[in-house]
Amino acid sequence: MLPTAAIRFPQPGQLKVLFFDVNETLLDMSKLKKAVVTAFGDKSAFRQWFGLLLQYLLVDTVTERYHEFGVIANAALDMTAAKLETKPLKAVQKQKILALMTQLPAHPDVAQGLEMLREAGYRLVAFTNSTKFVLDQQLQYAGIMGYFEQGLSVDVLRRYKPQRSTYHEVARHLGVMPEQAALIAAHGWDIAGAQAAGLFTGFIARPGQELYPLAGPPTYHGKTLVEVARQMIG
Amino acid sequence: MLPTAAIRFPQPGQLKVLFFDVNETLLDMSKLKKAVVTAFGDKSAFRQWFGLLLQYLLVDTVTERYHEFGVIANAALDMTAAKLETKPLKAVQKQKILALMTQLPAHPDVAQGLEMLREAGYRLVAFTNSTKFVLDQQLQYAGIMGYFEQGLSVDVLRRYKPQRSTYHEVARHLGVMPEQAALIAAHGWDIAGAQAAGLFTGFIARPGQELYPLAGPPTYHGKTLVEVARQMIG
Repeated sequence: MLPTAAIRFPQPGQLKVLFFDVNETLLDMSKLKKAVVTAFGDKSAFRQWFGLLLQYLLVDTVTERYHEFGVIANAALDMTAAKLETKPLKAVQKQKILALMTQLPAHPDVAQGLEMLREAGYRLVAFTNSTKFVLDQQLQYAGIMGYFEQGLSVDVLRRYKPQRSTYHEVARHLGVMPEQAALIAAHGWDIAGAQAAGLFTGFIARPGQELYPLAGPPTYHGKTLVEVARQMIG
Repeated sequence: MLPTAAIRFPQPGQLKVLFFDVNETLLDMSKLKKAVVTAFGDKSAFRQWFGLLLQYLLVDTVTERYHEFGVIANAALDMTAAKLETKPLKAVQKQKILALMTQLPAHPDVAQGLEMLREAGYRLVAFTNSTKFVLDQQLQYAGIMGYFEQGLSVDVLRRYKPQRSTYHEVARHLGVMPEQAALIAAHGWDIAGAQAAGLFTGFIARPGQELYPLAGPPTYHGKTLVEVARQMIG
């Protein structure tokens, strides 16, 4: 059980801006997952690859380096081959897989959830570790661009989520204090980072996603964005 | 191919201290791997678990938190269950698995490699993300404690490898400059961190281990510690 007693809720009217993580949180990556599993012939290959991608953007962060998300994603495909003790994929195979990042549908609950939150008066902002270029293509393809006041990428900061200062910078950019903002994400590491930065949080428990047990509980917690939206609107 | 042209070698006599990563680098984790795979009934479970462990100690680092390695290892077992969409392990199962961390044999090449390097006049230091308490038990069990001048843990710094300052602190503790030290490890992230901190590096390509393609090449590179030691002694 989560220690519910420790959950911190905003005062009425306190919460102004909602930041949305994009990959897995809003977008269904099944198509990409299938392509990675097929390319490596191993059912754990997608989790392995995406795990390495997240691990090495953190390595870059703590070693004070920066490479674009897609560049690390490409390198992580080679690292996945080494982990699985199989041959690396050919460049053209890797390109085909990475191109799928911009051709992902939204989860079925996303449009309704965004609509509810927009109508409730929140400012909605997409905020991703992908580049701005990829983000715009993603929101366009998924047909959800119109819900957002704007789309923001870490690429201008050259410092990934979940580094605390990254969340602080985007809150400042939007003209709000961290405690006037919430991050909605399907990733435990993103929730942990936003919490450490003083934001409220909403965790969408997509299948195979998990909270970090050593971080505090999220403010809101549901299986879909609609569930989380209902809690936020109250 | 690695860009060999970019490899930086020490001048004769420059290199004084060799830091050794412990888990996977010196110790064979097969026993632990088998236990995790059996407990979850999934052949990818060990890679998944160890990947999450490494990912979340990085999350702690960038969110300016600290939990002991064993505490994160325990949490990562729960996260692995969520990732695999299976039931969490019972507390007693987790304890049994984690206890194996201190009952791992050294890889067969390790004693010979350490002997060669000690005879060549290097100061040998074990340097791990595990606690000092666990480290001492590990070196004792594996019968390799006698090779080391000392064993150091990140726990006194409360800041994990591969954060740059972590390597700097241990070099200072040993009374050497970063460029008088080398890190020997089987992990791409550890090599990348030591490089970023200005140390020389030796990568042991244990099966399923990989370099980070976006970091520079290591100074030394072999399949066993004996191979790496031969290169260092020249």
